[in-house]
Amino acid sequence: MSVSSKRRGRQSYLLPSKPRVKSFAAIAGKKEGEGPLRGLFDIVIADDTLGEKSWERAESRMLEDVIRLCLEKKELSPESVDAFLGGDLLNQIVSASFAARQLGVPFLGLYGACSTMAESLLIGSMLIDGGFAQNVVCATCSHFSTAERQYRFPLEMGSVRPPYAQWTVTGAGATALTAEQGYPIAIESLTLGAVVDYNQNDENNMGAAMAPAAADTLRSHLAEMNRGADYYDLIVTGDLGRVGQALFEELCAEHGIELGGRYLDCGSEIFAPEQNLYSGGSGCGCSALVLNGKLLKEMERGERRRMLFMATGALLSPTTTLQGESIPGIAHAVSLEVC
Amino acid sequence: MSVSSKRRGRQSYLLPSKPRVKSFAAIAGKKEGEGPLRGLFDIVIADDTLGEKSWERAESRMLEDVIRLCLEKKELSPESVDAFLGGDLLNQIVSASFAARQLGVPFLGLYGACSTMAESLLIGSMLIDGGFAQNVVCATCSHFSTAERQYRFPLEMGSVRPPYAQWTVTGAGATALTAEQGYPIAIESLTLGAVVDYNQNDENNMGAAMAPAAADTLRSHLAEMNRGADYYDLIVTGDLGRVGQALFEELCAEHGIELGGRYLDCGSEIFAPEQNLYSGGSGCGCSALVLNGKLLKEMERGERRRMLFMATGALLSPTTTLQGESIPGIAHAVSLEVC
Repeated sequence: MSVSSKRRGRQSYLLPSKPRVKSFAAIAGKKEGEGPLRGLFDIVIADDTLGEKSWERAESRMLEDVIRLCLEKKELSPESVDAFLGGDLLNQIVSASFAARQLGVPFLGLYGACSTMAESLLIGSMLIDGGFAQNVVCATCSHFSTAERQYRFPLEMGSVRPPYAQWTVTGAGATALTAEQGYPIAIESLTLGAVVDYNQNDENNMGAAMAPAAADTLRSHLAEMNRGADYYDLIVTGDLGRVGQALFEELCAEHGIELGGRYLDCGSEIFAPEQNLYSGGSGCGCSALVLNGKLLKEMERGERRRMLFMATGALLSPTTTLQGESIPGIAHAVSLEVC
Repeated sequence: MSVSSKRRGRQSYLLPSKPRVKSFAAIAGKKEGEGPLRGLFDIVIADDTLGEKSWERAESRMLEDVIRLCLEKKELSPESVDAFLGGDLLNQIVSASFAARQLGVPFLGLYGACSTMAESLLIGSMLIDGGFAQNVVCATCSHFSTAERQYRFPLEMGSVRPPYAQWTVTGAGATALTAEQGYPIAIESLTLGAVVDYNQNDENNMGAAMAPAAADTLRSHLAEMNRGADYYDLIVTGDLGRVGQALFEELCAEHGIELGGRYLDCGSEIFAPEQNLYSGGSGCGCSALVLNGKLLKEMERGERRRMLFMATGALLSPTTTLQGESIPGIAHAVSLEVC
């Protein structure tokens, strides 16, 4: 098939075969299970070590478990999965690599920081539409305790953070995509993100670093697909949090995009303000939980028919921050529709 | 197109449209430029800081430079590139993310440790064959001084390593793939790697950790494509080094695969034994340099007609090693042929 039949512009593509969402699952940590989305997750873990000897092992186990659960729901065996696409926030994406080892499934390791859920859906659906896969599983995770000690300070220090900081979500989400028709939710189109940097260099304010990338991807998506924001029932950003969300809304207004009441940020959604978790949730697990715990269920029930899912990533490392670099952001968009 | 027309087994796929290699480039460090491949690189850098204030900035600059050079060789502008696929060894793949920011190209961040060159070619060629891209650039890099201080010890310590350790290559390589025909080298088929772990946990012996994955991917590729090893003029592993290479040859013999004289390991190739760099080269840049400096040139001249390129990755992190975990390995394979 020639490139022109799928391409809709510099960054956007139509998926003529409409790969379907076959199954999805979400495993949440305790705080996430007590928040506004309580009751929506398949499993809420009471002990964030899962009985493992380290938080890192627990994070990888959570990812393995959510993938197995996602597959079991539709009686898919790991052997019937052509590829596992995913990554996580830990250095060298060891949670995903170790989960891939346990599953024995061909593995494509991705790193898009907190945009990884969207990046995995985007590449996974292109592999299906391109005729390379029948079933893929797209999954990611994050864990408060592993992220905190890797990116910030030892937990034992009890360091204080500014109110615009975000709280890394403990959770894992998996979505199985298939070439089979007959499932209600399809991936209809997608937009690859480019890296955007507005020269923000406060590592505690990642929402502000990612908001310009989200606005940029949304603008490209709507222009290239020749749509208004009102084409969608819901436009979702990954984990901007309340501070980043406000900035995103401002940037959209500047671009002439009217979000109206059809906008939701997973980082603002996952925790209630009274949980006192600063500006909201962050981490790969944040948008993975909201997508696979709440949003896909709402689509399955037909309550939402067209959704643009844009997970956002802050492409920093602790080293670059110490070296005084700014924080580039990225956002990939996936358009889901009920057929 | 149905999945069955491209699939050749659990992990292998044929690429009916045969995406072409349009351009390639390699930038090497000083030691790499003095080794057996001297004279084959587009640029050899004398100063491994490239005049930047940190080695991390230098690594990212080297990656940006090699991509620009690769594009310029065929008068491709960054605007004509649909996606940059790549990653590197630094935490949160900041070299690739920062290079992507400078280029302004849609970016898919990958992490496959030292298998990243093959992973990027594999996903890039599927995107082209699937009708999603006209031109992609696949690129990766590594830098001795950034890797050493991130993975091992501060350079100033001058720590001693065992003779089976490897030396991280300073270098970057880029390959531009295109849907256009009329270029001599094509990507004909590919095999996605699964994670393999033989319970090796010596972080200094990554060749031994990766060799089983390379043997596993080669066995799957040959079985699924219904080929003997003699189908290829050359079978290439990424960076097993001399110790890992010997183990790989042993495992192939056990699997009944006769490599004969048609096998080369990039890690063994990049440095001469008299350079005293232990068991050979490693790092994403190792196979990227050998592929884009030497092997693609040999194919372009028609000296090699069929090559299987298998870059190998050790999926460890310093944290998992300290926690006593073993080192999982992965290898992705890409079959290149002269049309």
